[in-house]
Amino acid sequence: MQLVVAGTMALDTIETPFGRAERIVGGAATYIALAASYYVRPVGIVSIIGTDFPAEMLLKLEERGIDLTGVVRHLSKPSFFWAGRYHADMQGRDTLETQLNVLEDFPDTIPNSYKEAPFLLLGNLDPRLQKRIYEQISPRPAVVLMDTMNFWISGAREALEEMLGYVDILSINDEEARQLAGDYSLRRCARAILAKGPAYLIVKKGENGALLFTKEGETFFFPAYPLEDVFDPTGAGDTFAGAIMGYIAREGVLTLDVLKEAIVQGTILAGICVERFGPEALLAVDESELQRRREVLLRMSHFLRLPA
Amino acid sequence: MQLVVAGTMALDTIETPFGRAERIVGGAATYIALAASYYVRPVGIVSIIGTDFPAEMLLKLEERGIDLTGVVRHLSKPSFFWAGRYHADMQGRDTLETQLNVLEDFPDTIPNSYKEAPFLLLGNLDPRLQKRIYEQISPRPAVVLMDTMNFWISGAREALEEMLGYVDILSINDEEARQLAGDYSLRRCARAILAKGPAYLIVKKGENGALLFTKEGETFFFPAYPLEDVFDPTGAGDTFAGAIMGYIAREGVLTLDVLKEAIVQGTILAGICVERFGPEALLAVDESELQRRREVLLRMSHFLRLPA
Repeated sequence: MQLVVAGTMALDTIETPFGRAERIVGGAATYIALAASYYVRPVGIVSIIGTDFPAEMLLKLEERGIDLTGVVRHLSKPSFFWAGRYHADMQGRDTLETQLNVLEDFPDTIPNSYKEAPFLLLGNLDPRLQKRIYEQISPRPAVVLMDTMNFWISGAREALEEMLGYVDILSINDEEARQLAGDYSLRRCARAILAKGPAYLIVKKGENGALLFTKEGETFFFPAYPLEDVFDPTGAGDTFAGAIMGYIAREGVLTLDVLKEAIVQGTILAGICVERFGPEALLAVDESELQRRREVLLRMSHFLRLPA
Repeated sequence: MQLVVAGTMALDTIETPFGRAERIVGGAATYIALAASYYVRPVGIVSIIGTDFPAEMLLKLEERGIDLTGVVRHLSKPSFFWAGRYHADMQGRDTLETQLNVLEDFPDTIPNSYKEAPFLLLGNLDPRLQKRIYEQISPRPAVVLMDTMNFWISGAREALEEMLGYVDILSINDEEARQLAGDYSLRRCARAILAKGPAYLIVKKGENGALLFTKEGETFFFPAYPLEDVFDPTGAGDTFAGAIMGYIAREGVLTLDVLKEAIVQGTILAGICVERFGPEALLAVDESELQRRREVLLRMSHFLRLPA
């Protein structure tokens, strides 16, 4: 297995100003694995689904080179379910309903075929579970990327801080970075977080792009892909992380240059994701479209007029 | 006169999480002219001050090559006064008090020495007043940049839309762009606004940088200068516009390449401005610091790894 992805697979009901989608497939691992599959294969998922998870989507994932050996299907419970409504500005959202369902039975063992994977992406999960998955891969993966959320920062801080010592890249949003470091200045937050372990911190800012901070004290800025409309922001952060890790896995090595290009790829794929409901747009991305959008993104950020 | 700047000169009382400054010099024209003075001289201001405006600041402005022939000092009224308090996130702010005072007597004639100026920056003022100032320069300036605010967008829309037909560059923030165009998508807003006249629209997003939209349909992104702390955001947008116009005036011509570099310069000077209370940091900018920060800004935006 080239890349192992641990995270939820879910059913989501999503309301946006553009419409409503009822019980469509979602979950971090779904978005992550689909995004990564454009760069590296096979991608193995560690997750759990319920009796109601559509078999059709499992086939589509497999068609994209995604290995589901590590996905447990529960025999009696329904899938993890989330319902949310996005605000008119598409930035904020309200959670209308969360049903954990199978999530309580998330597997803490991974298939033997995953156990030597050189790349690991730990999606947003209980950090104690992230640790158990991390520990089963030996030798230690070459690169580990982790995501988390406010719920674990406040509710499982000790376990989360321990995990920071094991990861190479942490990818969180600006609010989470501020909560995790207890400061407003993102630059000071970055220093505090990087001091706990990761070599790189990626701070996601939605339509305002992303920042990359390095342990050496450097900062890099990446704009979001310019879109007319954001149709459904669900999964954008997971898609971003999945493409980043997929690209790194394809290159086989984590350097600053590789990571910068990986973030450009993540930006492009996240932009594609949010143009349709759920992961639909990620099922069939035209690779020439990736190249076209990369040129748009580079051109829009190209303000150099050297020498001054 | 190389560049004429019309705008307020004010006294401000500012509260931020870092402290409080009482009745310090502010006003759009003050920030604009100081910023522009690092690129072009002389810069002539059209404004009005009251009996309480400190003569010491007038001397400092003159020392920076700023011509005050067009600044009327009222014989009996106090200066325009604004008091505001910034929120902890330094993005939002509450206006605690506004005293128009001399602002009602803003001059609508400009000195003869200003009347052939090739560059004009119309700071945030009543658009009817902006028009009277604009009309007194003949031949029509080579480049006109305008700023405005929500108050005029809702209260003087017709006059403001007429002004859009006379300007080359409009520089406003994201909320103002959305209010002016009545849409949420900034890209659609930009198309609607550019259709009314300007060749270029600059949308300011504070700590999230700025976007440049062109009439030809191109978009460019500029990150904010990375700062540990923003001490006082007052005047950042005016400083940004002043440096942009100063740089254009120094180059003598408005091309897309010149404008892109001008926005880099505006970003740098705005970053310097917000590190101290009021316009203090703009009084003595070390020019080698501009060059140093330019390199930081270019490096942080340099994510190209060509070919893909």
